[in-house]
This record gives sequence, C-alpha cells and structure tokens, in this order.
Amino acid sequence: MTVARPHILTEADPLVRPAIHAALDRLDPHTRLTAGYQIGYWDATGEPTEGGSGKGLRSTLALLSARAAGKSDQDGMPSAVAVELVHNFSLLHDDVIDGDLERRHRPTAWCAFGVGPAILAGDALLNLATDVLSELPGPDAAAAARCLTVAVRQLIAGQAADMAFERRTDVTLDECLAMARNKTAALLSCSATLGAVLGGGPTPLTRGLARYGDRLGLAFQLVDDLLGIWGEPAVTGKPVLADLRARKKTVTVVRALTAGGPASDQFRELYCAAGELSPTDLSLAAMLIEETGARDWTVKEADRLLTEALTELDQLARMSAAGLLGTAALTPLHDDLTAIAHFMTGRTY
Amino acid sequence: MTVARPHILTEADPLVRPAIHAALDRLDPHTRLTAGYQIGYWDATGEPTEGGSGKGLRSTLALLSARAAGKSDQDGMPSAVAVELVHNFSLLHDDVIDGDLERRHRPTAWCAFGVGPAILAGDALLNLATDVLSELPGPDAAAAARCLTVAVRQLIAGQAADMAFERRTDVTLDECLAMARNKTAALLSCSATLGAVLGGGPTPLTRGLARYGDRLGLAFQLVDDLLGIWGEPAVTGKPVLADLRARKKTVTVVRALTAGGPASDQFRELYCAAGELSPTDLSLAAMLIEETGARDWTVKEADRLLTEALTELDQLARMSAAGLLGTAALTPLHDDLTAIAHFMTGRTY
Repeated sequence: MTVARPHILTEADPLVRPAIHAALDRLDPHTRLTAGYQIGYWDATGEPTEGGSGKGLRSTLALLSARAAGKSDQDGMPSAVAVELVHNFSLLHDDVIDGDLERRHRPTAWCAFGVGPAILAGDALLNLATDVLSELPGPDAAAAARCLTVAVRQLIAGQAADMAFERRTDVTLDECLAMARNKTAALLSCSATLGAVLGGGPTPLTRGLARYGDRLGLAFQLVDDLLGIWGEPAVTGKPVLADLRARKKTVTVVRALTAGGPASDQFRELYCAAGELSPTDLSLAAMLIEETGARDWTVKEADRLLTEALTELDQLARMSAAGLLGTAALTPLHDDLTAIAHFMTGRTY
Repeated sequence: MTVARPHILTEADPLVRPAIHAALDRLDPHTRLTAGYQIGYWDATGEPTEGGSGKGLRSTLALLSARAAGKSDQDGMPSAVAVELVHNFSLLHDDVIDGDLERRHRPTAWCAFGVGPAILAGDALLNLATDVLSELPGPDAAAAARCLTVAVRQLIAGQAADMAFERRTDVTLDECLAMARNKTAALLSCSATLGAVLGGGPTPLTRGLARYGDRLGLAFQLVDDLLGIWGEPAVTGKPVLADLRARKKTVTVVRALTAGGPASDQFRELYCAAGELSPTDLSLAAMLIEETGARDWTVKEADRLLTEALTELDQLARMSAAGLLGTAALTPLHDDLTAIAHFMTGRTY
C-alpha cells in the first residue's frame, strides 16, 4: 500500500528551509553551491529549484521532539537543521563511495561538481551540523551535540560494516541487523530525540522517543531492503533488482542466505559465485529468496518493529496525560508521529 | 638551513599518543583500523609500527596553549587530541581528492584500504574530534568546540578555493594568500589556542596565541610552497618540481604570474598552456619564477611572518610577566613556542 504524505511534513518544510539556508550561508561559495545542490535547493549553476530537501523526515521528527518537550519550533530549529545536514552529508559521501550517478532524479553531487568538491561539501555539512549546535549556550546544547556525534559514529560504523560485508560470505543475521540499526536507525532515533534533548526534556521522554526512532528506523531499513529487490523502479528510482545486482548483504538477503534448506543453499551458491549476475540469475535469485521465506520474514519483522514504535508512542502519551513527563505535552503530537511512522514504513513493496 | 626537532615535540608525543589511542578505540573495528593506519600507529594489518603520528606539531601547540592558561597537560589533552584528529581527517580526504599514492613513505590510506573506507575513516576522525570536546562539561568546552568547527570550516574553504584555482588563470595574490591562510593557518592558529580556550584562559592570551598561530601557519605554508618547487625530493618525500607539474596555484606561483615584466609573461604563457609540462618546461618554469623575484619575495614574506609570530610571543611574555594575563604564566613556554616556530619555518628550501 502507499500511504499519503503526512500533512506535518508539508507543514515543517517551509519552517526548516530558511534555517538550513542560513546555515549554508556560512560556507564558502564553492562548498555552499555543492552542499545546497545536494540538499536540492538549487541546480548546479545555483538557480533555485522547485521542491528539494528530500522528504524532510529527520528535521520534522526533530521539531516534533522539541514540541514534545514543550518547546517552540524556533527552540527546536537547530536540532532540525543539524539532523538534516548530517543526513545529507551521509548521502553525499555515500554517492561518492558507491559511484552512484543519480539521486532524486538528478545527477549526484560528485557527478555534477567532481569527487573533490563533493567530498569537501560532505565534510562541510557534517561540520556545520556540529557548528549549529555548539554555538548554543548551556548544558542541553552540549548534550545535543554529543547525541549527534554518537549517532554519526554509529552511522559510520554501519556504513563501514555494510562495505565489509560485501567481501564476506559468512555474515550472520545478528551482525546484519546491527549494521542496519547503525546505518539507518541511529540517525532516525537521534532525530526523534534531538529537539527534546536540546529542550531539556525529561529522561523518560527522550528515552521513549529514542526507542520509537530506533524501531521505526530499523523498520524503515527493512522496507528499503524489500524495495531494493521487489520495488517498482518507477517508484524507487533505482534499477530493477539493483541491490541483488550489487550483491548487497541486506537483512533480507542475509536472512535468505542463513535460512537453511534447499532454496537457501541454491541461493547461496548463485549469490556467492564469481562473475556478474545475468537478468535470469537476478530473477531466479529473487524467487529463491522468496522461497526461503526471507521476504515474508522481513515484512513481518518490519510490521513488528512498527508496532513496537507505535507502542512507545502510546506509552508516552499515557505518561504525558498522567502528568509524568513534567511540562511535556505529547498527546497532541501522537497523531503526527504515528502518521510519520506509517508513511515511512508503508512504501509499496 | 635545517633546524633540529625541538625537544618539546619529542616530549609531547608519548603524552598525546595514549589519549588518541583511547579516542580511536571508540570507533568500529574497520574504521579504527583505517584511522589508526592514517595516524601511523599501525600497519594495514593492525600490527603496531615504530614512529607514527607525523610531527605532532598541532597537538603539541594545543598542550602548550593549555599550559599557557595555567592548566595541566591532562586538562589540555582533549584539545590536543581534537586538533590532531582534525589534521589527520584533512590529510586523509586530501589524499583521496588528489589521488596521492604515498604519504610518510607508506601507501596512502585509500591505497591501502580503498576509497570508501578512507572517506569513512576521515569522516569518523572529524566527528571524533568534536566528540572528544563535546563530552566535556561547561561553557569553555563549548567555546573550544566552536573554535574547532570554525577552523574546520576555514580549512574546507581553503581546500575548495585551492581546487577552484586549478581551473582559473586570473587568481590574484590576495585571493591566494586568503586561500593559504584558510587551508593551513586556520587549524594551526586553532591548535595554538584551543588548549587555552578549553582552559578558560583570558582573552588577551587566546587572541595573542591565535595571532601567533596564524602568522606561523601562513609562514609554514609559504615554506611549503618553496619546498614544492625547490625542495630536495629526498627530504620532502615529493617528486622534484611536483607542485609545478600539477600546475598548482601556490602563493609563489601566483606571485610570479602576477609580478609583471617579461619573465612573468613568459612564465604565464608556459604555465597556462594546455598539455603536460616536460622536464625541460618544469626547469624553465622554476627558473622563470625565480627571475620574477617570486622566490625571494616568498622567502622574505615567510621571514616577515615568522618575525610577527615571534613578536606576538614576546608581547605575551611581557604581559604575563606584568601579571596582565591573570594566572597564566607564559614566560616558561616562550622558548618552546619560539623553537617550534623556527622548526616549522626552517625546513631546507
């Protein structure tokens, strides 16, 4: 099923955009051009473009978490800017590392500006994210900066493991889940928490939001793994069976490799052999994965994680209603956070 | 002339090394291996190596600046670790961007581990530097983190300008000096200040140290520019006339291009023509640069900047002796900072 874009995402974008613009304005003109192109604010010549900035999921989560701590959008804005900058830093360097040519239906930044400027622009976005937080006064800002650096470390660990897995044939499901958690869930969990941390929200609130973001992030990655195999190229923007062609060790793939049984054995033999996989091989591989039960398992696991994420929200709402979260008022945000969770995990697969 | 390595550098290294090790231990095993290889602590398999960590100039400056603020080496250690990590982040990404194969007589990190792991390890080092500062309590730590992010922004601006200059033939001397200041002096100035900022040193102290680091950093870059043309390959570790072969727009080169007169015109024609420069072209180019007076000018400018750096130290020592720097006691450090300045600018050229 496809879930409609929640209203809150559309509402948050025009709030966050000027703040990200202001942050970009601190950069030198070359780096600013590349960084703003990556985010989608302008084309390669600097002419403003329609749309841009992707889905704005992370910045919206950060703003909502600030509201959950009883803070204004203005108070939460540095956290929203920081997570969106980190997200784009990671996309930018990922595209260089993977040699990807297209993102969001445009040439990737390194294709448009070259590898050197793209690496530097990624560096600048990462640094700018810290900059935006470290200039704020008080211990809450320091805690927020620390929350972000820890998430970035996890993100890098996940990407490094993902790369290392390419050369291994003995990756376990637990290792793979840990990788996915680091690569995707860490920054989403940080996003769902950072505004509350910056706003000095109570620990039960930040912990609950962190768990919500963690479960949602992992579910999101599992859905992405499914889309990488069975997604419609027109919807995902990726070539058909792209992840299998690149022999990625996604959670679904590793589940199939480690499932045991004849389909698993046949899949392993095909997937771990040398040489390029032909279109027939790719279709067969997808069929074998399904036969191992890995597709069903992934769908169920994503559903289970989504339910866990929503349960965290319910619990926070109850605590909030009972006055256990101090000044924090989660109840009105419950619907927005629930809608985002459904949207993030309800992509067609 | 070659200036002997100051004793303080040899003394500081064993102090800083365990702290950098401890910081690296926070990274995932893949990224830690690449990052520690870059710093020089182990080989590509993780076996400990002799030597390593380069000259340790930046970390030593940071420790001395902490001492100048009346703080212990332990108090200053996070600043020493942070600047050394940032320096190595920048070398790591630089080598990827320039496609350089060797550094410190070993394969560069991307040659040893691949482009992906090298980019990620650079990202991790940059992030770790912030991490080390942002976990400390209090407003001085936040000020130190901010000082570092500003320096990193300048560093990136300098590298971006350096790259952009390659495609331009109309770079002015002022633009080129601004680029060199950003690329090299910003982090050195930050290094010479960061321990004092973290230690809550008085503003006249941190300002004076920042100016010392700025002048010294620019002088260091000018000496590097001279070495890139007239340095002995055996000493510099770079091929002969390497900077001219790459058609870099260093300060010396831009001074020669903009000097006016027949030698400048001839050099411009040679340097800005298409096609590879032959060994004869390269020797001729070096001769013409000398004829424009750009070599002498650069030597004098470096000397002038060194004198300015030392004057800052003298002034700080006088203020310190007069009790104008609060509890700070600069006098005993004057000799170390002077020795470092001579060492950094006294490389054979």
